[in-house]
Amino acid sequence: MIENKSFTLQELATQFSLELRGEPQTKVVHLATLKNATADALSFFANPAYLNDLNVTQAGIVILQAKDLETYHGACLISADPYLAYAKIAKLFTCVQSGKPLIHPRAIVAPDTDIHATASIGAGTVVEAGVSIGADCRIGANVTLCQGVQIGQRVIIHPGVVIGADGFGLAFDQDHWIKVPQLGSVRIGDDCEIGANSTIDRGALEDTVLEVDVRLDNLVQVAHNVHIGAHTAIAGCVGIAGSTRIGSYCMIAGASGIGGHIEIADKVTITAMSMVTQSIKEAGHYGSGVEAQPHTEWRRNLARLRRLDKTIRKLRG
Amino acid sequence: MIENKSFTLQELATQFSLELRGEPQTKVVHLATLKNATADALSFFANPAYLNDLNVTQAGIVILQAKDLETYHGACLISADPYLAYAKIAKLFTCVQSGKPLIHPRAIVAPDTDIHATASIGAGTVVEAGVSIGADCRIGANVTLCQGVQIGQRVIIHPGVVIGADGFGLAFDQDHWIKVPQLGSVRIGDDCEIGANSTIDRGALEDTVLEVDVRLDNLVQVAHNVHIGAHTAIAGCVGIAGSTRIGSYCMIAGASGIGGHIEIADKVTITAMSMVTQSIKEAGHYGSGVEAQPHTEWRRNLARLRRLDKTIRKLRG
Amino acid sequence: MIENKSFTLQELATQFSLELRGEPQTKVVHLATLKNATADALSFFANPAYLNDLNVTQAGIVILQAKDLETYHGACLISADPYLAYAKIAKLFTCVQSGKPLIHPRAIVAPDTDIHATASIGAGTVVEAGVSIGADCRIGANVTLCQGVQIGQRVIIHPGVVIGADGFGLAFDQDHWIKVPQLGSVRIGDDCEIGANSTIDRGALEDTVLEVDVRLDNLVQVAHNVHIGAHTAIAGCVGIAGSTRIGSYCMIAGASGIGGHIEIADKVTITAMSMVTQSIKEAGHYGSGVEAQPHTEWRRNLARLRRLDKTIRKLRG
Repeated sequence: MIENKSFTLQELATQFSLELRGEPQTKVVHLATLKNATADALSFFANPAYLNDLNVTQAGIVILQAKDLETYHGACLISADPYLAYAKIAKLFTCVQSGKPLIHPRAIVAPDTDIHATASIGAGTVVEAGVSIGADCRIGANVTLCQGVQIGQRVIIHPGVVIGADGFGLAFDQDHWIKVPQLGSVRIGDDCEIGANSTIDRGALEDTVLEVDVRLDNLVQVAHNVHIGAHTAIAGCVGIAGSTRIGSYCMIAGASGIGGHIEIADKVTITAMSMVTQSIKEAGHYGSGVEAQPHTEWRRNLARLRRLDKTIRKLRG
Repeated sequence: MIENKSFTLQELATQFSLELRGEPQTKVVHLATLKNATADALSFFANPAYLNDLNVTQAGIVILQAKDLETYHGACLISADPYLAYAKIAKLFTCVQSGKPLIHPRAIVAPDTDIHATASIGAGTVVEAGVSIGADCRIGANVTLCQGVQIGQRVIIHPGVVIGADGFGLAFDQDHWIKVPQLGSVRIGDDCEIGANSTIDRGALEDTVLEVDVRLDNLVQVAHNVHIGAHTAIAGCVGIAGSTRIGSYCMIAGASGIGGHIEIADKVTITAMSMVTQSIKEAGHYGSGVEAQPHTEWRRNLARLRRLDKTIRKLRG
Repeated sequence: MIENKSFTLQELATQFSLELRGEPQTKVVHLATLKNATADALSFFANPAYLNDLNVTQAGIVILQAKDLETYHGACLISADPYLAYAKIAKLFTCVQSGKPLIHPRAIVAPDTDIHATASIGAGTVVEAGVSIGADCRIGANVTLCQGVQIGQRVIIHPGVVIGADGFGLAFDQDHWIKVPQLGSVRIGDDCEIGANSTIDRGALEDTVLEVDVRLDNLVQVAHNVHIGAHTAIAGCVGIAGSTRIGSYCMIAGASGIGGHIEIADKVTITAMSMVTQSIKEAGHYGSGVEAQPHTEWRRNLARLRRLDKTIRKLRG
């Protein structure tokens, strides 16, 4: 933080149209968790798992729901969605680094690219020919944007990401593989965010597409020809196989795998470590992740699972 | 595409020894999917899931099997394996970029390396001492080839790959870990392809080996001392633990995990998200991936699974 | 190896306080596996799976347990933990590269960093402002250390690692996501090792922390606010979701997934491809990985699993 910013309870309530309780001149200068907050910190209570922390917090101001007003007696801002209110307020406290060159002198940018004057590009990042990057994008260090990739506006790409590598296209010719040319590209919509070391392959014939506001966590794999609808969020270590179409407003939890050539409807939620290999036509929650249990119990259950069909046939007589 | 190439139905049939049907002078200038093809495009029909697209395609020429001749009535090339025929023909349409320097001036190549004059190396790629790279290799941007790694001919390495980092070798010494020196290297055979951000560790004592024509998708982890047989293909997000030996002509689907110190025979196929921790001695298909279902159903089934052994004991009386 | 080092059985026994058997002047000049060892090589026998190799080894010296003295009749060093003894001895054989500059001239290091004079940094690696790196660290090529990350002493970071990218923090605002500022940093303790292309995100408010001697394999994802206790080892392709606290001396096998906002006690072992989404309060082994079986058998068992609840209800009448 270059300078300490300071806001009063009244100022925050007014600016974000929130109700307040407590001394309107209560002042906060930084953000903190409930547990570690001091009297000059703003914090929030959004997850009941942290109720113990709320009970003992020293925070100057807490953002919470109206229903928690009886539990907590300090100065607070009241919001139906405290995490969202926090997210908005937190931006006030993040410092803007000005005066830095936007394209790091050690980025490696091909001459025939179209990079908006407000986009920033990190050191070691490679931008190949024909790439376009929209306004206010933030491209981290050591990223690779392969030939012809198109990036919308306000897109954030974290370090180590590779966009536009060849898709995994192979045809088997008697006794060996031959590579299928990957002639499409990748289009990333406005307001997308791509986590560190994630990979998005170029399409075989058409483009791999992320619509607007798609959010990928780290180490996510998006294969060729995949189409991801607007506002879909995908957690870390998820893999999506080729030519699959995922709807809008979907949420895919960590380490799940989505098979190829299927369609997933809008507003589908996939729980963690699930495998989806057939199309899902209706919104809702789906899953197949298996929760761990003590190893000896699990070994016994697994042994039963591995002969479940036979066992059930026998039990039925 | 720098120049538009153009081929007639007759020319393609002759060059690739395929039968044709329709006007021999039908001309195509680019490639497209059935769905988006225009009259000057070549397309192919290889997956019955796209039958609806075949019925309405505007493609000038379609590559298909003889059995589909009754379904489709336009100009076509007939092949027992349309995808393979397409893969071969598609190469005609990919433009060769000539005149570019093969080693990007911003690649970082140690002096004592052995790089064939026809190999290309991308920007930001680091080639450490003692590395050898064979003829016609294409190494992408931001790759790391650690000390002494040997790469055969015609190998394609996509951006962000790391080959030859230390294997995960640790010995436990009373109350802490000590690192086991990783003294082997990595040898990659001719015609291999390694997907973006994949990692292949150096051997502990001997080399980690990929035989010829091994194909790895993105974000694949190959641990130390692993040996992968010729023509084996491994999809995205697969992890292979140390000292395991995988046969030739195997196929491992996405997000599977292969345990350490085992052997997998030739021509084994592992389905998606499966776990293999014991040797597989016979060719065939193996799997353990669990297909997702609606969350409430799955929760009930999972609760049963977690006490399956007890339940079956009771049912048996 | 720049020079051949040479050690006698007697010298090794004395230096590492091990008992010996055989001709004390037996000389070894390199290290090898049992299978490939020649008469001038040192090898070790630690895994009974390699008994056949022990029976035919040509190794000059084998490190083994006292109980194996009757099986093997050649010169040997006797240790209760042959792998540990090997790990210590092997360091004698690894050559030190001196005379090289520690910070590669093509590393990209911001001016306002605090890098100990004995730390080495690879080519293409980006060290952003405010980063500190302790004594004797070895940072590989193409690594990204984002703003303010703190690295202890003797830490090894392999190529392609990203430390300190933004955590995956999003709040949903009616019809779109808004990004939650990620204001914490990452602290990596002494003697940690981070495998190639792994990612460790910065905390949202506080720091993501790895205590001392934490060992991560390749392609591991550590989300924001995670705290990993000392001496914990995590194998390849594991993902750990946000705000989770993992104890000391834990071991997490490959491709497991650890959910967010939970606590895992000290000395917990998680077997491969397991999913942990609830806190684990007691030391021990836990798991949920499903071992592959022939595909047709598995399909039948899986079909039963997917209607297990109904089937058991029926069977119970």
